[in-house]
Amino acid sequence: MAENQPVPTDAQAAAVPTPANPATTTEAAEAGASTGPTKGELKRRAKEAEKAKKAAERAAREEEERKKREAAAAVDNASQNYGKLPLHQSQERTGRKFLKFDGLDKASVGQQVIFRARMHNMRPQGAKIVFLTFRQQTHTLQGVLVVSGEKDEHQVSKQMLKYAQTIPSESLVMVEGVIKEADVKSCTVQNFEIGVQKLYTAVEVGELPFSIDDASRPESDFQRMETEDVQFSRVSLPTRLDNRVLDLRTPTNQAIFRMSSAVCNLFRDYLNSQGFIEIHTPKLQGAATESGASVFKVQYFNSQAFLAQSPQLAKQMCIAGDMERVYEIAPVFRAEDSNTHRHMTEFMGLDLEMAIEEHYHEVLDVLDGLFKSIFKGLKEKFAHEIDVVAKQFPCEEFLFLDETLRLPFKEGMKMLKEAGATDSEGNPIGEMDDMSTENEKLLGRLVREKYKTDYFILDKFPLAIRPFYTMPDPVDPTLSNSYDFFMRGEEILSGAQRVHDPVVLEQRMKEVGIDPAAMQGYLDAFKLGAPPHGGGGIGLERVVMLFLKLGNIRRASLFPRDPKRLAP
Amino acid sequence: MAENQPVPTDAQAAAVPTPANPATTTEAAEAGASTGPTKGELKRRAKEAEKAKKAAERAAREEEERKKREAAAAVDNASQNYGKLPLHQSQERTGRKFLKFDGLDKASVGQQVIFRARMHNMRPQGAKIVFLTFRQQTHTLQGVLVVSGEKDEHQVSKQMLKYAQTIPSESLVMVEGVIKEADVKSCTVQNFEIGVQKLYTAVEVGELPFSIDDASRPESDFQRMETEDVQFSRVSLPTRLDNRVLDLRTPTNQAIFRMSSAVCNLFRDYLNSQGFIEIHTPKLQGAATESGASVFKVQYFNSQAFLAQSPQLAKQMCIAGDMERVYEIAPVFRAEDSNTHRHMTEFMGLDLEMAIEEHYHEVLDVLDGLFKSIFKGLKEKFAHEIDVVAKQFPCEEFLFLDETLRLPFKEGMKMLKEAGATDSEGNPIGEMDDMSTENEKLLGRLVREKYKTDYFILDKFPLAIRPFYTMPDPVDPTLSNSYDFFMRGEEILSGAQRVHDPVVLEQRMKEVGIDPAAMQGYLDAFKLGAPPHGGGGIGLERVVMLFLKLGNIRRASLFPRDPKRLAP
Repeated sequence: MAENQPVPTDAQAAAVPTPANPATTTEAAEAGASTGPTKGELKRRAKEAEKAKKAAERAAREEEERKKREAAAAVDNASQNYGKLPLHQSQERTGRKFLKFDGLDKASVGQQVIFRARMHNMRPQGAKIVFLTFRQQTHTLQGVLVVSGEKDEHQVSKQMLKYAQTIPSESLVMVEGVIKEADVKSCTVQNFEIGVQKLYTAVEVGELPFSIDDASRPESDFQRMETEDVQFSRVSLPTRLDNRVLDLRTPTNQAIFRMSSAVCNLFRDYLNSQGFIEIHTPKLQGAATESGASVFKVQYFNSQAFLAQSPQLAKQMCIAGDMERVYEIAPVFRAEDSNTHRHMTEFMGLDLEMAIEEHYHEVLDVLDGLFKSIFKGLKEKFAHEIDVVAKQFPCEEFLFLDETLRLPFKEGMKMLKEAGATDSEGNPIGEMDDMSTENEKLLGRLVREKYKTDYFILDKFPLAIRPFYTMPDPVDPTLSNSYDFFMRGEEILSGAQRVHDPVVLEQRMKEVGIDPAAMQGYLDAFKLGAPPHGGGGIGLERVVMLFLKLGNIRRASLFPRDPKRLAP
Repeated sequence: MAENQPVPTDAQAAAVPTPANPATTTEAAEAGASTGPTKGELKRRAKEAEKAKKAAERAAREEEERKKREAAAAVDNASQNYGKLPLHQSQERTGRKFLKFDGLDKASVGQQVIFRARMHNMRPQGAKIVFLTFRQQTHTLQGVLVVSGEKDEHQVSKQMLKYAQTIPSESLVMVEGVIKEADVKSCTVQNFEIGVQKLYTAVEVGELPFSIDDASRPESDFQRMETEDVQFSRVSLPTRLDNRVLDLRTPTNQAIFRMSSAVCNLFRDYLNSQGFIEIHTPKLQGAATESGASVFKVQYFNSQAFLAQSPQLAKQMCIAGDMERVYEIAPVFRAEDSNTHRHMTEFMGLDLEMAIEEHYHEVLDVLDGLFKSIFKGLKEKFAHEIDVVAKQFPCEEFLFLDETLRLPFKEGMKMLKEAGATDSEGNPIGEMDDMSTENEKLLGRLVREKYKTDYFILDKFPLAIRPFYTMPDPVDPTLSNSYDFFMRGEEILSGAQRVHDPVVLEQRMKEVGIDPAAMQGYLDAFKLGAPPHGGGGIGLERVVMLFLKLGNIRRASLFPRDPKRLAP
């Protein structure tokens, strides 16, 4: 049924019961007050008495009927069709199939269905009809509840209509009814609606900190407030995160976390096809794995442990243990007190490491194939989710080339220099400088303009700006066999060929001022013999944030952690 | 070439160079000491002088040739065919395909190949031949190095043979040669061997704490020492774990961790097919998630955090956030000071949670389908790995039924009682008692005997022995909608329908003596409305340990953590 259709005939036909006419009895009482009756008068009186008696009898009968009708109305023959359900304790298992909105099609029309959904919102229309919006994840379906005649097989009473309007938003309802063809603009399911026959509250929800509609608004809604006579509530990111359970129900979030799950599946599928195996390495470490400054300390019985800042050493040990090609998806912990749009204290690391046969570009090839497989997979299988997110976070489509651009670091610096980029102090940049976050973004824009891609690789970074375990270039000792991958001008992967020789490793440590004794465990692992190898680490939330241009990494994390947030 | 085959002809043909005969020149000198020459004598002398001159010339020529030959031998024409390679810095990329032993087949015979492998061991046979065993993961291949003639296209010199014998075990070697048909008993590749032409050390390894062969011995080898004149070194578990990089190279460990990786893939594949999505929930928590006693404390900037003991609350919050069906594979931290064969302080939790429509047995069905899919997948696709592990850890095949046995808890207790089981104090057990670890194992044996299965489910546990968030049975308030899954008599999954109503949850907390105020975050999550739901948690290492009967959970963890071990 379309929203603006007139109230149907069976509802109109339910006429209001007519009360008995009081005028009849008043007339009879007045007649009894006269004096000096004649025979004719008596006959007339007898006639009138008879008439009054009959009228009284009729009035009594009518009064009785009215009472009966009222009693019938109070009993409410539809009472079994609505109400609050008892606590679900798995009382019975009938095997009925529950409808999922995304399964609706032409064949569903006319079918009797049952489903559970959120009560998204409702809109009464007149005294006998109410339009309900039911929600399941990213899908909404219109329900129509219409007061029906007493004899209707599926009776909907006024009380039931009233009950429907008292169900709080976000409550979980159990609905039974018949699917009908329709033309609904306000729901995601536009060709069908449900004629509601039964409506129960399974889980009732109290007052809400914000509505799903408000939490789903794009920035453009708030811009409309500048020029139009509209009023919208903006839900701040902290408020969302404080009430993340509610916030997760927005279609945007439902889509974001489906895509986050998909990135992991695509990551694994590609690497499994390339002969990798999955590993799980310990997050509790006896020593800081990379740098002591940004490591979390754990009280470990009567001793101390540290949370792994990366699986760097562990995955390299697996390569030394002849596992050849390994990957891990696991949390990574960084005790960095930075409150930026792209830092969290805990995030998901998608790490891989592989033995090299001839050249570290074998790793680059695997990583590049991996990213393209992820981008393609998202675009092909998650078009619906990308559209859903774009409604709240509109952005330019993510571009990537069949043949990925691989730019030497020096070339990237040259492009920046030609565009007039400066370092943080405003001086012209040198080709061996570190690249600032701002210059990375600028390079991203320059590359998009020149090469029409949001994804590219910078190769051959200066040795001086990479970790000590990075393998130096075989010809130019100031360069290294290392690379970063970029999406929309932000780094999403950092990787390199590693130094696999313990003597060279120790020498590199000394060169950069690290005491080899402090990293004896790291050195020892290589004394047992590791093949040449390389790899990289990807931040899951960054990939999701940048692909969908969410603007803040917290939006790509279910329950983000930063220096100021440890809950929920 | 078979091991006991005679030395080939081309090697025999390489004859030792003959030194020049000194007798010739001595004879000439003696002739020059005579007096009174006749014409005939002069003629004879002239002839002899001529002869001596020629002999001297020949001797000089031969001496020169001898020197040449000696010089040639010192130069070693095969020197370019062996030696230590320079540090691999990705010097060049030729695109040559490196051989993987598991790719060898009939078509490989006669092919020139190159590969990298571990030098597993070697055995010289006479002065001109050495048998080498190369290893790649679970595969070993025999190499034969034979000293060849000077003119041989691929020259193998004595020096090269000598070099081969100095390469330390476990060094990584680069090998070139030709694949030949063979019949080798001592390697996993039995039908082929490689005639070695070039042999370089890519990564040299020093002294080893133990050999891969010793680390691979089954218990039966040590039992042989009781009756036979054999001597084997036993490698203790702590020694293995201290040198885990080396230990991981045993075929057993290569197979174990391939199967561990497979369990995760099978877990995800099944759940993906059932509409689940993967989630990642934070391990850093603002409050202890389950019990305060066994939680690790983390210094979180100027505050305190806790390591998640399970994703219990987080996955339930995702269900309240309308994600319907979720799973997570992530580390779980337990600060339990227990040093048993089946406890670690950090292990991999395979968790899932799903909304229930009618009955919690919907969860039981999913979990049961999941386990059967894992068992089938392992048996079908990892027969080689199961065989490899069984060589070191022999065990009865893991049995499971098409129709899984689902035993009510009371029924299990009855079986135990009938078998004369007692509680820890030696008293007869009651049907509502908690089941001890010993009785679980006994029940596993009773079930295997009666039902021919190593896998079964116990359903409907007493409410009193389950966590407060377990949903009570709808009819018998002393029972609950909860279950455990067992493999070989050990619990591998614990799960239940959860209490999704905040009022009932608070009431349950009070009943078991938990202050609701201490778990306000948990309660608050349900006030926003959660559908009825249930789930469970599986210990990855336990599944692997029990399927393969490894006897100790540490063998199923790459780098195990227990109260006494935080490294490597």
